[in-house]
Amino acid sequence: MSKQKVNVAIIGAGRIGKVHAETLAFRLPEARILAIADVNRDAAQAVASRCGIPTVAESSDEIFANRDVDAVLICSSTSTHADLTVQAARAGKHIFCEKPIAHNLSEIDLALAAVKEAGVKLQIGFNRRFDANFARVREAVVSGEIGSPRLMHIISRDPAPPPISYVKVSGGMFMDMTIHDFDMARFLIGDEVEEIYTSGAVMVDPEIGKAGDLDTALIVMRFKNGVIATIDNCRQAAYGYDQRVEILGSEGKIATENCYPNQAVVSTGKMVRTDLPLNFFMDRYTESFAAELRAFVEAVREDRPTPVTGIDGRIPVVMGLAARRSFVEHRPVRLDEVTA
Amino acid sequence: MSKQKVNVAIIGAGRIGKVHAETLAFRLPEARILAIADVNRDAAQAVASRCGIPTVAESSDEIFANRDVDAVLICSSTSTHADLTVQAARAGKHIFCEKPIAHNLSEIDLALAAVKEAGVKLQIGFNRRFDANFARVREAVVSGEIGSPRLMHIISRDPAPPPISYVKVSGGMFMDMTIHDFDMARFLIGDEVEEIYTSGAVMVDPEIGKAGDLDTALIVMRFKNGVIATIDNCRQAAYGYDQRVEILGSEGKIATENCYPNQAVVSTGKMVRTDLPLNFFMDRYTESFAAELRAFVEAVREDRPTPVTGIDGRIPVVMGLAARRSFVEHRPVRLDEVTA
Amino acid sequence: MSKQKVNVAIIGAGRIGKVHAETLAFRLPEARILAIADVNRDAAQAVASRCGIPTVAESSDEIFANRDVDAVLICSSTSTHADLTVQAARAGKHIFCEKPIAHNLSEIDLALAAVKEAGVKLQIGFNRRFDANFARVREAVVSGEIGSPRLMHIISRDPAPPPISYVKVSGGMFMDMTIHDFDMARFLIGDEVEEIYTSGAVMVDPEIGKAGDLDTALIVMRFKNGVIATIDNCRQAAYGYDQRVEILGSEGKIATENCYPNQAVVSTGKMVRTDLPLNFFMDRYTESFAAELRAFVEAVREDRPTPVTGIDGRIPVVMGLAARRSFVEHRPVRLDEVTA
Amino acid sequence: MSKQKVNVAIIGAGRIGKVHAETLAFRLPEARILAIADVNRDAAQAVASRCGIPTVAESSDEIFANRDVDAVLICSSTSTHADLTVQAARAGKHIFCEKPIAHNLSEIDLALAAVKEAGVKLQIGFNRRFDANFARVREAVVSGEIGSPRLMHIISRDPAPPPISYVKVSGGMFMDMTIHDFDMARFLIGDEVEEIYTSGAVMVDPEIGKAGDLDTALIVMRFKNGVIATIDNCRQAAYGYDQRVEILGSEGKIATENCYPNQAVVSTGKMVRTDLPLNFFMDRYTESFAAELRAFVEAVREDRPTPVTGIDGRIPVVMGLAARRSFVEHRPVRLDEVTA
Repeated sequence: MSKQKVNVAIIGAGRIGKVHAETLAFRLPEARILAIADVNRDAAQAVASRCGIPTVAESSDEIFANRDVDAVLICSSTSTHADLTVQAARAGKHIFCEKPIAHNLSEIDLALAAVKEAGVKLQIGFNRRFDANFARVREAVVSGEIGSPRLMHIISRDPAPPPISYVKVSGGMFMDMTIHDFDMARFLIGDEVEEIYTSGAVMVDPEIGKAGDLDTALIVMRFKNGVIATIDNCRQAAYGYDQRVEILGSEGKIATENCYPNQAVVSTGKMVRTDLPLNFFMDRYTESFAAELRAFVEAVREDRPTPVTGIDGRIPVVMGLAARRSFVEHRPVRLDEVTA
Repeated sequence: MSKQKVNVAIIGAGRIGKVHAETLAFRLPEARILAIADVNRDAAQAVASRCGIPTVAESSDEIFANRDVDAVLICSSTSTHADLTVQAARAGKHIFCEKPIAHNLSEIDLALAAVKEAGVKLQIGFNRRFDANFARVREAVVSGEIGSPRLMHIISRDPAPPPISYVKVSGGMFMDMTIHDFDMARFLIGDEVEEIYTSGAVMVDPEIGKAGDLDTALIVMRFKNGVIATIDNCRQAAYGYDQRVEILGSEGKIATENCYPNQAVVSTGKMVRTDLPLNFFMDRYTESFAAELRAFVEAVREDRPTPVTGIDGRIPVVMGLAARRSFVEHRPVRLDEVTA
Repeated sequence: MSKQKVNVAIIGAGRIGKVHAETLAFRLPEARILAIADVNRDAAQAVASRCGIPTVAESSDEIFANRDVDAVLICSSTSTHADLTVQAARAGKHIFCEKPIAHNLSEIDLALAAVKEAGVKLQIGFNRRFDANFARVREAVVSGEIGSPRLMHIISRDPAPPPISYVKVSGGMFMDMTIHDFDMARFLIGDEVEEIYTSGAVMVDPEIGKAGDLDTALIVMRFKNGVIATIDNCRQAAYGYDQRVEILGSEGKIATENCYPNQAVVSTGKMVRTDLPLNFFMDRYTESFAAELRAFVEAVREDRPTPVTGIDGRIPVVMGLAARRSFVEHRPVRLDEVTA
Repeated sequence: MSKQKVNVAIIGAGRIGKVHAETLAFRLPEARILAIADVNRDAAQAVASRCGIPTVAESSDEIFANRDVDAVLICSSTSTHADLTVQAARAGKHIFCEKPIAHNLSEIDLALAAVKEAGVKLQIGFNRRFDANFARVREAVVSGEIGSPRLMHIISRDPAPPPISYVKVSGGMFMDMTIHDFDMARFLIGDEVEEIYTSGAVMVDPEIGKAGDLDTALIVMRFKNGVIATIDNCRQAAYGYDQRVEILGSEGKIATENCYPNQAVVSTGKMVRTDLPLNFFMDRYTESFAAELRAFVEAVREDRPTPVTGIDGRIPVVMGLAARRSFVEHRPVRLDEVTA
């Protein structure tokens, strides 16, 4: 297809499904939403009303059966991603799938095989690649502005931990939170990680520990090209969402600061202060959510490769498994030790 | 009316008309654009296609005659603002009018009288009040965070001067460029200016001087409540659009920085650097353009006063005339010396 | 003389005399302090003990009569500066004199004439020229880094007003506080001011008004080369000493921030904050006090011109008188209107 | 002793010996330098002349034999530190010793035993504890301003690697460069490290690798109290000396920026820029060198404990040995695995 509107359907009307629906409806004239489905039909109806979506589908099957649908957005819960991807691929739909595809490699590999066989496009929802800050860092690496990268640090801290009920089904911090940082690491350096060492702890909430997870971690990665990188994760930062990166290269460094709601500085008799950074991902990454969908719609319309592929969805899961094993076995773990 | 969609028509399909059309079409589900008109019919047609506007009107008359239109956006050239405002008011339409209403007070007063007589709403396009930075500064003044204001500085510099052809019909820098800063001064301090002193020059382009205008100015204002304030204007800043403000109060100060496309800092063997600030008003004030329209649509829907009224459109013109007279007569000029 | 130690005597053992004594004693091996005098002999004795000064002189006369003294530092009260300068010059001593030389031009002219006749060196204590920030700004102007200057803003605010007793003998804010900024304006632009307009008020303390002075002012200066500049003065800034400058040139701008005791930023659940700037001139300008003395000692040792001359001491007084007249007469005042 | 001048002698007239001599001579009136010795007698003579030191000793023996000497500064090459410490202690002198005491624990333990037996004071030259930035960070930890520390990052990069000849005798990067960061880690957290994991590489200069050393490292430390910390070391940063720290605590974070020669920001048509940070330790840590000596002199004068003790000199060497072993054995190493 080319230069026509892309007909999209959305599976999942939760938080991220709603964000994508609004982007498609109000900011992407190149797309048209034909239908939305959710196990919670009221949620789907609410989004449909807000965004002018003509059909609330009874099920994902109805969507896959709709011949007019060019592409589907899989925004349902993680446990359904792999299976829906397989079904969508078999129905010949292009696929935008939220991360992670699955928590285990066998399911992921089945999904990727189905996509390959069907010859449809697949894009994984690693939206942060489309953030202006991280895109600028990547540009500095590609252009040689800072020379050859040597050391990289990714800081990624949430304002507050999710509910324990969520922690229990999240697949663990590495799969739920760090997975974005694993993708960011690969994206920024443009190379693959060879080995991971994890130092982690429960510092925020003992309940997280009881649920078998951790809430604070420092991950060291060694890339094939020699770059040494860290990820600093914490489920709680009192001052809000902390999303920064720094790369030292042979010719210089590039470092990004957080994003703030305004550029005002107040000086009083006690201190010089600013307001807190943008509080969480919905505020911080607003534009990147729109940009990733724009890229997906363009890839479909112009029949080009998607910018975040299935393999880009698989590797961070391998990294998450390696990070976990390193933490458990208290030693550096090579990625090639991790197999399905 | 209440809680229904507001039916809007747009007069003028130039740069700002297009921006407003996109906001209404893609970001304000509470509004619906029924028609657009422009003396350049192709321009109107292009915007209509992009934004899904059903009707390209032959003229503003056709728009005023359309009973379904609740409100009009006057985005045509300045010389038409006052007359179109009068016609729109007589047709019973609510009005969003770009600044300035007119370059002389008699036309403005006729327009405001027509609005008053018709009982319609009028909002002037001083979008910067809706910018997050300036809103934060105003909040600091209102809340007492910095105590009682004493001194204020507004920096407002364009990246490059407009074409000489535009300069000649612009009404002069004070009416075209400073007028935003005059509004900002009143908005931030929440009081009226009593007297203005202007020091100005032609430093950027001698052609601007030949056209009878200046391109660089320093304006000192004294408010009724005693605050002393300056506006620093230049038609050219090599590094781009410079839009800052600082207020010193009895308990502290608040100062805003420019907005940047990203928060990345690059350090090399030669310097520590960032990219340039957002280059011009379309980038810098994107969100404020959307926010002012949202406020207008809300005011119409909920039958509340508009946040920027007709008198808010008139006073900056008085200030512009006083600034010009101060420059010509080389002395401080009181605003009450300026009469229609 | 050349390459020997410079023998110095100090007249005045108050705050600034003590600072200079410590610099000479502990940081300038090229100088040797032979004697110190003060009407308060205990004060002189205390400084002598601390700094290893061998002689506490009975009077300035004793110092002038001392054949071993090469140079004197006049750090006594302002009213004595001009007369002591005359005496020192007649005694053949090189002179470092604190600002201002006097509050009226006739005294200044007598002093400068005596210096000229004696052929001694005279340096005025405008230490801020030697501050790293302002030196960097001057360098940017001289090197053309920002092109031709167009607009300049000097912010100069004290943390708190001096005692009313001091205000009464200070010569007024323009002569006591702004005089540094007048010198800075000339130094940074490298040209002379032609005309001054002052807007001022009493906002900090009504007692200052009763003493015939003001505590808040905005001064507009027009230079002969066309540059328009402002000085923002306030006797009170809740957050401490505020000393900044910004110059807009044809190719860019340079702006300086305040100096802070550390570069730490604290982020908590309420705000992002830093400590307050260095509180007052003793902390903020420590290094510049040492640097100006080093420059003076070098000028004497190597028989070169001093970097801040007698005429540099005279012109800011003219500017202060013009600023005052502008305030009183409520109009722009040309410097050539000000005569002895 | 109390409140008298402390009589000091200096062993070693190289770079750091000269810095300390100038501090004592020009900035610490509470101390008096009696003698200086160096195997290079000319170097000793030059410092003596500059700083007014009366005696250039033939040897350290002459200094230890001098009954008037209260304290010695050991600023000679590292290989002599331990032995000179033993001799000084036996001679009853208080000791300020540059870091590290030695590269192996047995020598260190002999030296510390001699100090203990003699009952003299010993201070190790970990000057960075006295830097305003790091002192502020420590204060935030102690005061609870950021709650309980969770994660810490120390960035410590040199502008350029030392000559290979120096690398060969340096004891390795961990002992020569990281040792300051090991001390900083202990100082800031106020607790001991239990385990270290090192990822390192040769990225700057292959010659460093041939000399058996590395030039780039990322070290992960786990403290007994659970804090996880990293040290980022590189022998080369194109933009200069990079010395920062960040601590995330339960209530917030504190982060320090580098120090710059001025606070000027230049904006041109190409970028917004500042000058480079202060280039190396002599500029960056000037004040901390003076402050550590002031603390030592005060400790001697007032018979109080020194702020950086012998054990503070020993533990970072243990950490360096553990870091090295972790790198070689490619696994986390507990500090208690490291024995003399």
